[in-house]
Amino acid sequence: MRTRPLKVALLGCGVVGSEVARIMTTHADDLTARIGAPVELAGVAVRRPDRVREGIAPELITTDATALVKRGDIDVVVEVIGGIEPARSLITTAFEHGASVVSANKALLAQDGAALHAAAEQHGKDLYYEAAVAGAIPLVRPLRESLAGDKINRVMGIVNGTTNFILDKMDSTGAGYQEALDEATALGYAEADPTADVEGFDAAAKAAILAGIAFHTRVRLDDVYREGMTEVTAADFASAKEMGCTIKLLAICERAEDGASVTARVHPAMIPLSHPLASVRGAYNAVFVESDAAGQLMFYGPGAGGSPTASAVLGDLVAVCRNRIGGATGPGESAYAALPVSPMGDVVTRYHISLDVADKPGVLAQVATVFAEHGVSIDTVRQSGKDGEASLVVVTHRASDAALTGTVEALRKLDTVRGVASIMRVEGE
Amino acid sequence: MRTRPLKVALLGCGVVGSEVARIMTTHADDLTARIGAPVELAGVAVRRPDRVREGIAPELITTDATALVKRGDIDVVVEVIGGIEPARSLITTAFEHGASVVSANKALLAQDGAALHAAAEQHGKDLYYEAAVAGAIPLVRPLRESLAGDKINRVMGIVNGTTNFILDKMDSTGAGYQEALDEATALGYAEADPTADVEGFDAAAKAAILAGIAFHTRVRLDDVYREGMTEVTAADFASAKEMGCTIKLLAICERAEDGASVTARVHPAMIPLSHPLASVRGAYNAVFVESDAAGQLMFYGPGAGGSPTASAVLGDLVAVCRNRIGGATGPGESAYAALPVSPMGDVVTRYHISLDVADKPGVLAQVATVFAEHGVSIDTVRQSGKDGEASLVVVTHRASDAALTGTVEALRKLDTVRGVASIMRVEGE
Repeated sequence: MRTRPLKVALLGCGVVGSEVARIMTTHADDLTARIGAPVELAGVAVRRPDRVREGIAPELITTDATALVKRGDIDVVVEVIGGIEPARSLITTAFEHGASVVSANKALLAQDGAALHAAAEQHGKDLYYEAAVAGAIPLVRPLRESLAGDKINRVMGIVNGTTNFILDKMDSTGAGYQEALDEATALGYAEADPTADVEGFDAAAKAAILAGIAFHTRVRLDDVYREGMTEVTAADFASAKEMGCTIKLLAICERAEDGASVTARVHPAMIPLSHPLASVRGAYNAVFVESDAAGQLMFYGPGAGGSPTASAVLGDLVAVCRNRIGGATGPGESAYAALPVSPMGDVVTRYHISLDVADKPGVLAQVATVFAEHGVSIDTVRQSGKDGEASLVVVTHRASDAALTGTVEALRKLDTVRGVASIMRVEGE
Repeated sequence: MRTRPLKVALLGCGVVGSEVARIMTTHADDLTARIGAPVELAGVAVRRPDRVREGIAPELITTDATALVKRGDIDVVVEVIGGIEPARSLITTAFEHGASVVSANKALLAQDGAALHAAAEQHGKDLYYEAAVAGAIPLVRPLRESLAGDKINRVMGIVNGTTNFILDKMDSTGAGYQEALDEATALGYAEADPTADVEGFDAAAKAAILAGIAFHTRVRLDDVYREGMTEVTAADFASAKEMGCTIKLLAICERAEDGASVTARVHPAMIPLSHPLASVRGAYNAVFVESDAAGQLMFYGPGAGGSPTASAVLGDLVAVCRNRIGGATGPGESAYAALPVSPMGDVVTRYHISLDVADKPGVLAQVATVFAEHGVSIDTVRQSGKDGEASLVVVTHRASDAALTGTVEALRKLDTVRGVASIMRVEGE
């Protein structure tokens, strides 16, 4: 065993960073044995240097992150700042100065993953980022390595704990969106500004990363269709229950049936209660993977939080350190397939549509004609009404999103259709 | 990219081997891109050379496996023969002649893992075996690598599809063991001689491998307590239901509460219906992992079958080939913790005990006294009876297996206890 320690620079010392530092100290002997050399915390870049940081020697603290990554003696830079800048510049500088990088930065990887991978490869260094997707759940490594001999056709997951907490609360208590969000905020599951979570931006970044790895194709954040879950209502949950379903905010990455293109999207969807994802409760995450040979796999665990994210960061740290000692690098970007990413209109799935309609003869015939004209085949229709008002719930067979959108536009123009109360995709069947 | 192909020798061409060969052919371009060099099937050792093997050139077939692994130009030997010999000798010979090894052989790894790892290390070669545990489910790699910076405290899983199919059938239909086994046999889920599955030998081998990896400690098959599931009855399922539980055959690897020792065991157990493992249906496998930092993780998927197992083998093949091209080796055996493996008597859990007792006053007091004398605290007792016969169902708090065994021995000696109808551990609470 070599005795010169590997030097680690930690960028960021918030909820995740402080846990990484703590575990590096408390589990130092284990890490040494597993890596084959000691690891040493060589510096910690923070924004607020005067804050007390238990267990971290004050002389390690610096506000000059750039100087830290430029030191030249750093083996691994652990980036847990988040956001695009200064994280991107710091990571690039780290590669230029001889360090490998472990990052938990989903937004950055979704936006600039290709450039960062290229920088890592140019300098012969590692870029690992297990913590960027689904927190503690081993997912990046299984997709990049365990399934490297298989053909992945679909990755469908609950990758945002905040929104799953809210939806689970709505499902189990009948609460509305705002009430459930308030509870999530009070319990610390939602941030003061929950936009990134509830509007699906966080999940979309993870979808881009997962799709890229699964399909060996560059998928950027802009390629991901995104729809938040702020408009999901208690009535939607009631409709879902009638269908034996619940509602989840899903990130779905799919290979088209002909294999020639891929799609990535985030939106609320109904899934059958019998689907393994339906029983994922609270702030947990779970990702369902379908591949040619392995079949159906699911990975489940805490998707966020200081300790779980630190676990993923440290697993990467061990791997990167081992690679460094062995003079090797792990798998880099794999984008050789370079499949086109199709727009949302090409996605094929089923739909659950609630319409408010006039309660008079012939309405159903009119509505059904519109569906038929757009090539959308109806599976079931349920009609209910009183006092001149009626509602129609239509569940379709599989159809393209473009066809469904055309159908809905045409439905809105019918005099007898007073409103489209909700449109929800139905997945996992 | 290098153009000289990596040469692969396949030992065994049954259900798994033929799938490995098929995917190597059909996915050749993908494998080349992912590995960075082509892989070539250089020879296939079989027992029955005259059988038609679609897609495999006849000149690759040989019955002389030893000559094949000794050729000297083989980069990777894929061993999917199973059993101890000749697999063990062939793997050792492969290392001696410069090859790395991918194996799906749980029995061999559970029995001789340490020696095989030592041989791999001595020759600077890789030994990968994702397919040996839980088929397609990425588990060995996540435990060895993703959680390498964490401290695993418990691994609890359904790692045998045959027995899960049988127990699930008993649970959902009320069938008895034999009836459910017959159906499993008819459907091809159970072998003609189901002993290895139903007596827990298969699960015990996997438990040994998982415990070894999770606790960085050598755990051999002999260290694993093993109890089959042939004595689980429809009455046990009825009792489980009354407690809000179901029954699963579980492999459980635990670190003792003081962290100073570990245990590994396989037995049927009641688990609450709310536990994620309770809803694992049919022949699926799932493994629940608890660690300090990551918290609770679960990995779910098909635990057996040609294609799923081939997926795991090929993932390993890609990794080993990449290592070979990079001149590196992956993680070897990690047994530095060398924790003692405690006997079953030291395991602490809860128990569900059904007693047939005389229906007369004072019996409950006598029984309760025996539990108290052995330091086993009772959680609940349910008494029912008619016509002079009565039954007592006792559910205990946590107690050591030794204390429970002592209690049961003493209970059997009571005149008022006519028999111990069943003893079942209660896990996952």
